[in-house]
Amino acid sequence: MDFSAIFLPEVLGTAMLTLLGCGVVANAVLPTTKGNNGGWLLINFGWGLAVFAGVYVAYSTGAHINPAVTLGLLANGSDFFPGNADAGLEVIAGTVPNAVVYILAQMIGAIIGAVVCWLAYKQHFDQPADDGTKLAVFSTGPAIRSYGWNFVTEVIATFVLVYVIIAFGHTPSGLGPLAVALLVVGIGASLGGPTGYAINPARDLGPRIAHALLPIKGKGSSDWGYSWVPVAGPIVGGVIAGLFATVSL
Amino acid sequence: MDFSAIFLPEVLGTAMLTLLGCGVVANAVLPTTKGNNGGWLLINFGWGLAVFAGVYVAYSTGAHINPAVTLGLLANGSDFFPGNADAGLEVIAGTVPNAVVYILAQMIGAIIGAVVCWLAYKQHFDQPADDGTKLAVFSTGPAIRSYGWNFVTEVIATFVLVYVIIAFGHTPSGLGPLAVALLVVGIGASLGGPTGYAINPARDLGPRIAHALLPIKGKGSSDWGYSWVPVAGPIVGGVIAGLFATVSL
Amino acid sequence: MDFSAIFLPEVLGTAMLTLLGCGVVANAVLPTTKGNNGGWLLINFGWGLAVFAGVYVAYSTGAHINPAVTLGLLANGSDFFPGNADAGLEVIAGTVPNAVVYILAQMIGAIIGAVVCWLAYKQHFDQPADDGTKLAVFSTGPAIRSYGWNFVTEVIATFVLVYVIIAFGHTPSGLGPLAVALLVVGIGASLGGPTGYAINPARDLGPRIAHALLPIKGKGSSDWGYSWVPVAGPIVGGVIAGLFATVSL
Amino acid sequence: MDFSAIFLPEVLGTAMLTLLGCGVVANAVLPTTKGNNGGWLLINFGWGLAVFAGVYVAYSTGAHINPAVTLGLLANGSDFFPGNADAGLEVIAGTVPNAVVYILAQMIGAIIGAVVCWLAYKQHFDQPADDGTKLAVFSTGPAIRSYGWNFVTEVIATFVLVYVIIAFGHTPSGLGPLAVALLVVGIGASLGGPTGYAINPARDLGPRIAHALLPIKGKGSSDWGYSWVPVAGPIVGGVIAGLFATVSL
Repeated sequence: MDFSAIFLPEVLGTAMLTLLGCGVVANAVLPTTKGNNGGWLLINFGWGLAVFAGVYVAYSTGAHINPAVTLGLLANGSDFFPGNADAGLEVIAGTVPNAVVYILAQMIGAIIGAVVCWLAYKQHFDQPADDGTKLAVFSTGPAIRSYGWNFVTEVIATFVLVYVIIAFGHTPSGLGPLAVALLVVGIGASLGGPTGYAINPARDLGPRIAHALLPIKGKGSSDWGYSWVPVAGPIVGGVIAGLFATVSL
Repeated sequence: MDFSAIFLPEVLGTAMLTLLGCGVVANAVLPTTKGNNGGWLLINFGWGLAVFAGVYVAYSTGAHINPAVTLGLLANGSDFFPGNADAGLEVIAGTVPNAVVYILAQMIGAIIGAVVCWLAYKQHFDQPADDGTKLAVFSTGPAIRSYGWNFVTEVIATFVLVYVIIAFGHTPSGLGPLAVALLVVGIGASLGGPTGYAINPARDLGPRIAHALLPIKGKGSSDWGYSWVPVAGPIVGGVIAGLFATVSL
Repeated sequence: MDFSAIFLPEVLGTAMLTLLGCGVVANAVLPTTKGNNGGWLLINFGWGLAVFAGVYVAYSTGAHINPAVTLGLLANGSDFFPGNADAGLEVIAGTVPNAVVYILAQMIGAIIGAVVCWLAYKQHFDQPADDGTKLAVFSTGPAIRSYGWNFVTEVIATFVLVYVIIAFGHTPSGLGPLAVALLVVGIGASLGGPTGYAINPARDLGPRIAHALLPIKGKGSSDWGYSWVPVAGPIVGGVIAGLFATVSL
Repeated sequence: MDFSAIFLPEVLGTAMLTLLGCGVVANAVLPTTKGNNGGWLLINFGWGLAVFAGVYVAYSTGAHINPAVTLGLLANGSDFFPGNADAGLEVIAGTVPNAVVYILAQMIGAIIGAVVCWLAYKQHFDQPADDGTKLAVFSTGPAIRSYGWNFVTEVIATFVLVYVIIAFGHTPSGLGPLAVALLVVGIGASLGGPTGYAINPARDLGPRIAHALLPIKGKGSSDWGYSWVPVAGPIVGGVIAGLFATVSL
């Protein structure tokens, strides 16, 4: 187990992810912000570039910042980070103990990022708004509630994420963090319509926990009834992607 | 013939293309999605990044994922994939039997991707909507119907696609899949206005077949009267590009 | 003089530029297109990616595709193309006879691209529309007409274009055509507000000539009174940039 | 002290930054421009690409073009520019005297860029408009005024900027100026909602000084009461980032 090599970068990278990712939703939906009603493409770019920043911060761990990626790579039998001797970075093996460290760190980081986002938008959270709107900054919710179909959508979208990330590793492209960022922009644009594309259990559950704990003015339910969908769907999608990649890439 | 090297990557890459490409249209036009009325630029980025993902998935075949590209390269006398010894990938020759395998795989992949897109947006397809709207998720249709002029537009747009892709191969740019993705964003923004830029026979015909076969709630005609335009136009445009490139690049 | 090395690539690259560039305006402003009212950012990306495609097509000449770039490099004392031995491309010297060939080719290419754009959008040009709207597809016009201030704006915007392009050559960045494309997106977003950012005499005058000659249904004036501004402004801005770069970069 | 190596590039790079950055706001908010009401994403891309252009212009100094970056690197104990022997560029050490030169140059450049922006949009400034709108072209202002919380938002956003820039230097990514540009697009999308993301004391104070000095038709207050927030917030955020990076990256 490479605890010290994994833990802090994954905490910080995932915190960066949810800070910027929850931030763009806050900007688009909370009252009186400058980006109010900025549109879906704004949200897609905001989340894509949140990944971009998070991946640079967690570069030395392979920047999973997502349990679905960690579990997908585990299912794939890949190293968690291939190492980079030029940059003085060592290989991190894909083992169950290492996966536990990644996921623990991601959960903690996701909560921290959401808390900092709340601070950055504190005054806008203090404005009156629909309580669903305030929750939407933190966690995803379905456009049409149907746990089964919402689950299917999350499985498909996360399959795309993890499968294409594994495909990146089979090419000499060299775009690195930009490739992942653009992939996330694309998944949001294309497959985010029904469920808001959690595609990452930590990204959804961490901020939901933050929502439940924080003293947000006028907040409503944290919608725990739905909360298993954006956890289970991405895990299933990521694992299927990892397994399918072993026979197809 | 390199059947085993070509078939599966082209199936999967083209499926990724139509999954994400049809997906962004579903998000923009179907009722109650989160990206509803997201605008033309959202659709352009969605399709461009669909190509981005598809190209990475089919990297080992040169990622044609489009019969117009395959036939354009054939007309150009190019290899279908130049190979990449560093990544352990072999040259795939530009021959008629290989072209048949590419196109067969592209058609199968395009159908699969459209079916998965329908699953991802199942609940939104179940909402009442204009039947033209539901078809639009799958296949292109003209803004003003006129088979002759619609054909001309598709020829021009596909010429640009295939000619510039061939031009990429004459430069040391190194952007790889990103360059193709941005080119497709640009073609959509600039030349997509009259016909919705099929620029790919498989992208249009495959999903149209899926539309005809799937039990889509409240679906209407698959508009077979128009279906030859986004097949013939791209083929003609791609072949002209391939031939013209032999004397101009 | 390297006539044969310069002429055809510059014709084709500039034709690609105005085909896609005029195309995005057609898509955004002509009646009943799919991108109608697509917004300023759509136009900015369309023109930026028009440059992207044009630069790849004219890669072997250094892809000026703009007399302001050619004259700016001449004023700077630079080679017109530094050559690329790896790609088998020779240096093209920055001389007056070569500049004449570049500019002649750019003008011819710009006209061709505009004609092809008209064909691609033929049915939409046949719809009734304000004649200013139809001209706007081809050439720029000022938001507030004032030849002096419009000239100033074009000088400033073209200075930015040419100066930053020269700056690219002083860095090891390696983004190549993408860097120029993004620069043009940025100039359009930031400095396009008053005059529509011609920043290229060929891009404006070539399509204006096409507008005057083509049998466009219901067309009005080609606005020759304004036509000198987007020619003279970019030339002055480009030359100032070339000269200023000699002492500052 | 490397005065001659630092001063002119930082002046010119920062001038390019505020010319294009203030320009996109002018385009989006001033009356009768072509980009009027272009939306938040347009502003985000405009500022991001303003950074892109400014970074290329000031490449030889490491392109801080922002006192928060300079002070963050000073706190981090980094060189101000690592040098680039291939491009003939020398290392610039991170010392207090050098920092003074950087910041002085940034302030002068920021004023110059804002003045040139005013010239480019002169006629649109001459139109009647709310005086807050005219100031918004130059300097940021809060959506909800509360010096304390506005300060917090600027600290957080600038922390992200400087911390991720330092993270870039720990990776072999090679995207260079594009990475910084995209980071700024992302920060604007995600954290710009409450205060308009100054994240750069020179970017805000320099144009505010220009606003105070220029004979802008119908201008109102330069809002000096708020002016310390976008200076102090970014400095604090940048320094915290620089210090935190020493123990976490």
